[in-house]
Amino acid sequence: MNEHGTPAGGSALAVRQAARAGTLAGQTAGLAPGFVQVNLVILPEADAAAFLRFCTANPRPCPLLAVSEPGERGCARLGADLDIARDVPRYRVFRDGALSDEPTDVAGLWRDDLVTFALGCSFTFEHALLADGIPLRHVAEGRNVAMYRSSIELAPAGPFGGAMVVSMRPLAPAHAIRAVQICTRYPQVHGAPLHLGDPAAIGIDDLARPDYGEAVTVADGELPVFWACGVTPQRALERAGLPFAITHSPGHMLVTDIRDHELALM
Amino acid sequence: MNEHGTPAGGSALAVRQAARAGTLAGQTAGLAPGFVQVNLVILPEADAAAFLRFCTANPRPCPLLAVSEPGERGCARLGADLDIARDVPRYRVFRDGALSDEPTDVAGLWRDDLVTFALGCSFTFEHALLADGIPLRHVAEGRNVAMYRSSIELAPAGPFGGAMVVSMRPLAPAHAIRAVQICTRYPQVHGAPLHLGDPAAIGIDDLARPDYGEAVTVADGELPVFWACGVTPQRALERAGLPFAITHSPGHMLVTDIRDHELALM
Repeated sequence: MNEHGTPAGGSALAVRQAARAGTLAGQTAGLAPGFVQVNLVILPEADAAAFLRFCTANPRPCPLLAVSEPGERGCARLGADLDIARDVPRYRVFRDGALSDEPTDVAGLWRDDLVTFALGCSFTFEHALLADGIPLRHVAEGRNVAMYRSSIELAPAGPFGGAMVVSMRPLAPAHAIRAVQICTRYPQVHGAPLHLGDPAAIGIDDLARPDYGEAVTVADGELPVFWACGVTPQRALERAGLPFAITHSPGHMLVTDIRDHELALM
Repeated sequence: MNEHGTPAGGSALAVRQAARAGTLAGQTAGLAPGFVQVNLVILPEADAAAFLRFCTANPRPCPLLAVSEPGERGCARLGADLDIARDVPRYRVFRDGALSDEPTDVAGLWRDDLVTFALGCSFTFEHALLADGIPLRHVAEGRNVAMYRSSIELAPAGPFGGAMVVSMRPLAPAHAIRAVQICTRYPQVHGAPLHLGDPAAIGIDDLARPDYGEAVTVADGELPVFWACGVTPQRALERAGLPFAITHSPGHMLVTDIRDHELALM
């Protein structure tokens, strides 16, 4: 058992069952290694069509792994015996664009018109990079990855739009090149980096002051390498000011039965 | 007809026949577009085994496309009706490690123990980059690519070794990322870049003073991107000081019947 009360290295189903039972309410990083974790956005059908157009138009920050039918709480594509309303350790509920609650269960709020979007998460490509021997500073330092609001404009759809949020990982040049190769295999979890080198070129003034997550050191001889980030859809959602929306709480992901390697193109 | 007396866009065979007839003695860049051009190294069998080990140990700068049988002047892998001793517009002959002649024909020097090595050339990946809409500064400026002796040590074999020669192309960051993806498809023509950013990290003090080729401008917002270069085996050959060796003269390549796209992994 680990600090979350979950068997270390336990299966994805065990993590979901612990979340459902209320014995897991913490972050999911490192749980059920090898299994894909996803970002969740849950919207009434009235807003879901525009959000689907938004994801389709911005696949790098919003890579869609699955979209549910309206009202559906299970999702065979994501896992067996899966309950979208109970299997995430902690949710966020937004009302009129503002965070109103962070419950561990949204079964009591469920509606027949809710559509669930499951979006790929950087954990999958980070595992692939680490497995290839590429060290990640934020992992070594036990921090959250540094994320920044960039100047890269998103393609708007309905009420959704704004600027892309990017994550940054400092890498030696040879590792940056290898990371492009590895991440290109994983288009459903943000794919290849979209920028490297000068942060100002994408509207980032100060790497030491991330907008989300925590700053990490960029050592001499390293390049800051930037990826499209899954916080982008979260931010677009808040910016849209919808009457009602549910997401996972940052870091508290839905753990699926999909294996990381299944998302590799080759 | 172009300045070389060769039909523009003519087939690879037409270029070889023009070289063989003596009507083409100039450089081959831009001739027979879409066909693979190769670097040639021709050595007595006594030295060929060590050179083959050298290429095998250093595939990035020395990507082998074909190795002939001793004495063989044709090479079905490279093209139909092909004569290694006559189909290159200009050769270099080395004796005791020094350049002794630059003839347009080496038929008179041919020996039954000569082994020919055909090595991939950057023209192939440059065509792929240009076709993808990535501008190349040296092409735009009508110059030879800038090449540098780096501090990257080669794996030695027999008398062959030394430091790797690299070529440099300045690219915007997004183009550098795309170039990694495109060039990864072409391992037989040097593959992905091996470094980007700080030249000093690979022992290059001044980009404005290349060791081979011509300097090009690195514009604001661009990264210098470095690839393993086919001048590496040429330099290793000179450094080895062999009694007898033949190569193509720089820029005067053997044009093969292999199509550029045939060298793509996918």
